[in-house]
Amino acid sequence: MKAPSVRALVLVLCVLVYLLAGAAVFEALEAESERSGRREVERRAAEMKQKYGFTDAEYHRLEKLLLLAKPHRAGRQWTFAGSFYFAVTVITTIGYGHSSPRTDAGKVFCMFYAVLGIPLTLVMFQSIGERMNTFVRYLMHRSGRCIGLRRTGVSMGNMVSVGFLFCLSTLCVGAAAFSHFEGWSFFHACYYCFITLTTIGFGDFVALQKKEDLEKKVPYVAFTFTYILVGLSVIGAFLNLVVLRFLTVSSEGEDGNERMTQGDLHRRSHMASNMSTVENGHSTFSLFSLTMSESVDHGCHLNPVFYNSVSYRVDEASYCGSGGSSALGSLNGLLIPDMNRSFTRRRSV
Amino acid sequence: MKAPSVRALVLVLCVLVYLLAGAAVFEALEAESERSGRREVERRAAEMKQKYGFTDAEYHRLEKLLLLAKPHRAGRQWTFAGSFYFAVTVITTIGYGHSSPRTDAGKVFCMFYAVLGIPLTLVMFQSIGERMNTFVRYLMHRSGRCIGLRRTGVSMGNMVSVGFLFCLSTLCVGAAAFSHFEGWSFFHACYYCFITLTTIGFGDFVALQKKEDLEKKVPYVAFTFTYILVGLSVIGAFLNLVVLRFLTVSSEGEDGNERMTQGDLHRRSHMASNMSTVENGHSTFSLFSLTMSESVDHGCHLNPVFYNSVSYRVDEASYCGSGGSSALGSLNGLLIPDMNRSFTRRRSV
Repeated sequence: MKAPSVRALVLVLCVLVYLLAGAAVFEALEAESERSGRREVERRAAEMKQKYGFTDAEYHRLEKLLLLAKPHRAGRQWTFAGSFYFAVTVITTIGYGHSSPRTDAGKVFCMFYAVLGIPLTLVMFQSIGERMNTFVRYLMHRSGRCIGLRRTGVSMGNMVSVGFLFCLSTLCVGAAAFSHFEGWSFFHACYYCFITLTTIGFGDFVALQKKEDLEKKVPYVAFTFTYILVGLSVIGAFLNLVVLRFLTVSSEGEDGNERMTQGDLHRRSHMASNMSTVENGHSTFSLFSLTMSESVDHGCHLNPVFYNSVSYRVDEASYCGSGGSSALGSLNGLLIPDMNRSFTRRRSV
Repeated sequence: MKAPSVRALVLVLCVLVYLLAGAAVFEALEAESERSGRREVERRAAEMKQKYGFTDAEYHRLEKLLLLAKPHRAGRQWTFAGSFYFAVTVITTIGYGHSSPRTDAGKVFCMFYAVLGIPLTLVMFQSIGERMNTFVRYLMHRSGRCIGLRRTGVSMGNMVSVGFLFCLSTLCVGAAAFSHFEGWSFFHACYYCFITLTTIGFGDFVALQKKEDLEKKVPYVAFTFTYILVGLSVIGAFLNLVVLRFLTVSSEGEDGNERMTQGDLHRRSHMASNMSTVENGHSTFSLFSLTMSESVDHGCHLNPVFYNSVSYRVDEASYCGSGGSSALGSLNGLLIPDMNRSFTRRRSV
């Protein structure tokens, strides 16, 4: 079986095990609370039925009515601001569900709107994220020079740390703000921000749903929209830094199409030995993403799949700086021990 | 301003305009239905209050109780199967919200669970997606050979068409199944599948929420979990094909680091002229992703940001087949007219 197929299989198994483990823990944590909650609700419902003399049918009618009334409790949702809020939850895939289209026309439009909107938003957040990372890297390099460091290269580890701090700060700022505006505890506001910025969006905590906030508190509405969009950009930057490269590289590890000559490897060996900031932490990359394979053909592949791919060769120019490093840079270090072979690497973009 | 910054800015503006337009349409489609729904609910609530002689305080108590009872209407959610279902909605970011952790311990675990689970799942779906695309490409190539086509290269357009058909089939199969099992109309089941597979997950339609389905209909539960995971893989394959390359390439358009010699360009010119399936439709790529810039330096960059990047050089080996094409292949066609220049291209992965 080919290496990328093995990798996909390993990932599937990992996710399944992760799901099973998660299910066990969630059940252990929540089942008792659910049971007691259910008993309490049943007790109070029985009291209520007795007090007002409801029949079961009447109770169910009342239940239905009150559930129908629920979306209206927070005031009108389909004002322009509310519709904008809803559109944000669609194209970002947060999907709280605090409001959802009631009409069939609204449902149809929502689907078409998402088909174009989701990829557009994804590309936008990644583009902003990449710009943010580049800017942060530049600032770190400049500040390194300002304080007189000889080696001002910014390692991947530093970037990830800074990205993580940014994410944490975004979460804390949001938690402070929403706990103030919504009257939630800091922990609950933090949970809300996390569930929002990961785009899970359960809808158990939703901002702007207190009576008519959406219609009357314009600055708070503006803050919420801005927070969600900026927060998602910060998360986008972190994903761009940490996760996107796994996706990008995930298609590289096939029966290689990228040839490296011994000369290339020699040059890389020399350059890698000059790199001061190679991150050991990124050796895990090789597990998922790069599987080097030998190739005996030179320049032409018989694999039909290959014809439709563009392969990239790691360009030694990127190592010309003495302070340079990257996660992929560290990977190249892995190549060096076995320099007698002609390695190939493929990228099926 | 640098090209990637301009691109990011253009994308932000596009998304803002898209949100404003979406908000206007959603408001136009939904506002009247909301108003009439609200009037109806108020009328019925008033009737109910009058009939049973509720005070406002009693009505609100009842309302609160019935909303608390809502999550219990579909039977126990935090069984092992229900917890697995919940875990799926967390790591895929669907987040219906049909059940969400009540305990603080559950909320904390949910956050840690998502932090690792979401990237892992993302990588898994993209890995499976890439494998699916490779397999489909291989099948198409083989079937092309079987029916005696001389040129068996699979164009990007063909792949996108097949991917789109796969997505549509997945949606239709799901819609047929869920309309059968849940008693929804085909349209509503289709809407449910769409909202699920895009990971929006409003929670207005949620499978397995009819009384105790989750506990008693094991084959249907297994089908639902399988459908969601396989469906997301199919969508992942399509995204891998269509959207991921925008993200991948989105960091390439900077002040280029990839040098191509005139010899390279000559070879490419020759190879591109042999390519039969270059897609015109993909020329839009150049708008967002590739900005070629001239470079006079040879091998060494002064831009500090560059030191931390790995740049790839398009490897001419990938064009050795006569039938080959790809979206990036078509892009290289764009290079050819101006062969007197030394083009550079950078990839900041």
